[in-house]
Amino acid sequence: MINKLIANITKTNAPIVVGLDPMLNYVPEYIKEAAFAEYGETLKGAAEAIWVYNKGIIDATYDLIPAVKPQIAMYEQFGIEGLIAFHKTCEYAKEKGLVVIGDIKRGDIGSTSTAYAVGHLGHVQVGSNKLAGFDEDFVTVNPYLGSDGVKPFVDVCKEEGKGIFVLVKTSNPSSGEFQDRIIDGRPLYELVAEKVVEWGSECMGNGYSNVGCVVGATYPEMGKVLRKLMPNTYILVPGYGAQGGKAEDLVHYFNEDGLGAIVNSSRGIIAAYKQDKYAGFGEKAYADASRKAVVDMIADINGALGK
Amino acid sequence: MINKLIANITKTNAPIVVGLDPMLNYVPEYIKEAAFAEYGETLKGAAEAIWVYNKGIIDATYDLIPAVKPQIAMYEQFGIEGLIAFHKTCEYAKEKGLVVIGDIKRGDIGSTSTAYAVGHLGHVQVGSNKLAGFDEDFVTVNPYLGSDGVKPFVDVCKEEGKGIFVLVKTSNPSSGEFQDRIIDGRPLYELVAEKVVEWGSECMGNGYSNVGCVVGATYPEMGKVLRKLMPNTYILVPGYGAQGGKAEDLVHYFNEDGLGAIVNSSRGIIAAYKQDKYAGFGEKAYADASRKAVVDMIADINGALGK
Repeated sequence: MINKLIANITKTNAPIVVGLDPMLNYVPEYIKEAAFAEYGETLKGAAEAIWVYNKGIIDATYDLIPAVKPQIAMYEQFGIEGLIAFHKTCEYAKEKGLVVIGDIKRGDIGSTSTAYAVGHLGHVQVGSNKLAGFDEDFVTVNPYLGSDGVKPFVDVCKEEGKGIFVLVKTSNPSSGEFQDRIIDGRPLYELVAEKVVEWGSECMGNGYSNVGCVVGATYPEMGKVLRKLMPNTYILVPGYGAQGGKAEDLVHYFNEDGLGAIVNSSRGIIAAYKQDKYAGFGEKAYADASRKAVVDMIADINGALGK
Repeated sequence: MINKLIANITKTNAPIVVGLDPMLNYVPEYIKEAAFAEYGETLKGAAEAIWVYNKGIIDATYDLIPAVKPQIAMYEQFGIEGLIAFHKTCEYAKEKGLVVIGDIKRGDIGSTSTAYAVGHLGHVQVGSNKLAGFDEDFVTVNPYLGSDGVKPFVDVCKEEGKGIFVLVKTSNPSSGEFQDRIIDGRPLYELVAEKVVEWGSECMGNGYSNVGCVVGATYPEMGKVLRKLMPNTYILVPGYGAQGGKAEDLVHYFNEDGLGAIVNSSRGIIAAYKQDKYAGFGEKAYADASRKAVVDMIADINGALGK
């Protein structure tokens, strides 16, 4: 799957991913009104509003971008109905040729991690059938439980031709509380990075592994070190834009081949129409505002990369 | 919610929780046949089989136990249909007076952690309504992202009278890869434990906090230290039975008041009829085998505690 992701990035010349993390207050009023008129102010009404909103953004941007990253928490908060909207969003994005990175940050042990991997990346055996649950292309994985927690995902990736991104250094202010603590002279996130390389060596694509990692845009000095430590690991970079990460900070997350990193923006794209800069579009044209924000983000990042 | 959990434990004199982690191969053939006859060998058929199986176990054990712990991964592997069975299981267990600990091991940052907390413990705002998604009583939380990831759960616990169990030291063989690494002379899990105490101090019940922790039964020496480090923290203890943890190892997870820990068994209870010891029940009486296994587990643990 890393090969497909890289092919999509190369084709679009856009090392970016749009984070589909819908908050209900991002959704234009007219979409909410229509959904609530049909289903009431219910979980189903909320899920319908989010799905319509997402579909508009995908339709307006799919030709410009390689991938989307739906954040499952934003759907899970609406229970079953929200998860149906998550699944529809994933399926629709795949129909449009996009790679789908499920931002699920799961992680457990043994057969339990296998169950997550099977449900999100693989097929579960039911009688004589092998059936897909959510069927994303990549998912994000939390490494706190160690190899027992991550290897079942790697095994499913090998069987199914899928991929994962393992959390190494997250973008949030308190990520240092545990991740930066010094062990034998080096921060914990470097030890996790070394394990990512080890897990990923079993699961290589062309030049890059199907086991990628997450390193926040908000810690560029650490990103520089981690890039060198994991030369064949794709880095998924959250934290650009709304969280404070700047394009010039991201240069060292890339390799000299111009590959090796994919930068996420969520709010900055999907709620672009709420920013002063794109307010002229108005809420009816929210998806056009998202398209313009994508064009600007690609120019910003490629500019910093000198492309 | 910790007060309700303790009340249930005291009433049943059973510091145990039954892990509802159904694998399809635990489910008796006759239940699978009926479910597949109705819905085919589909995700819905699998989910129906699991739900019927769970209901049988709950009906046969609810009067003996304080709580159940459904492991969401085992449902999520069957996609939306599986999650519907998860939700039905949680609701049914609550109807029976049981405390429901959703073993979801979620963890993210800021508004994303809030979304998980809201979806699993709280209510989400939809128009003028406040609606519950999954509505468990407690959930398990992964701390790798630090306070930003955990505090949103604590805030929702305060608002909604719910609780969490934060992973400190997990029961799996490779849990030491990161959790045991030495930082300033102490293992990482002790640093996490100190944070658990800090987070929990905001959210106290009567004597114990609504912020509990997870410490595996398979590391009794560490459990002893962690008990002392977190005197007012309830410890959820996985790893008893099938994973190798023994009752006598668990004594030091409890405080002198006889409280402070709740021991989980999953396979050992729900698939008891597959063990030689309980094979006499046969698969038709799988739930009776589970009841007997619960009785034996309570006797085993209370015996070790001298109760």
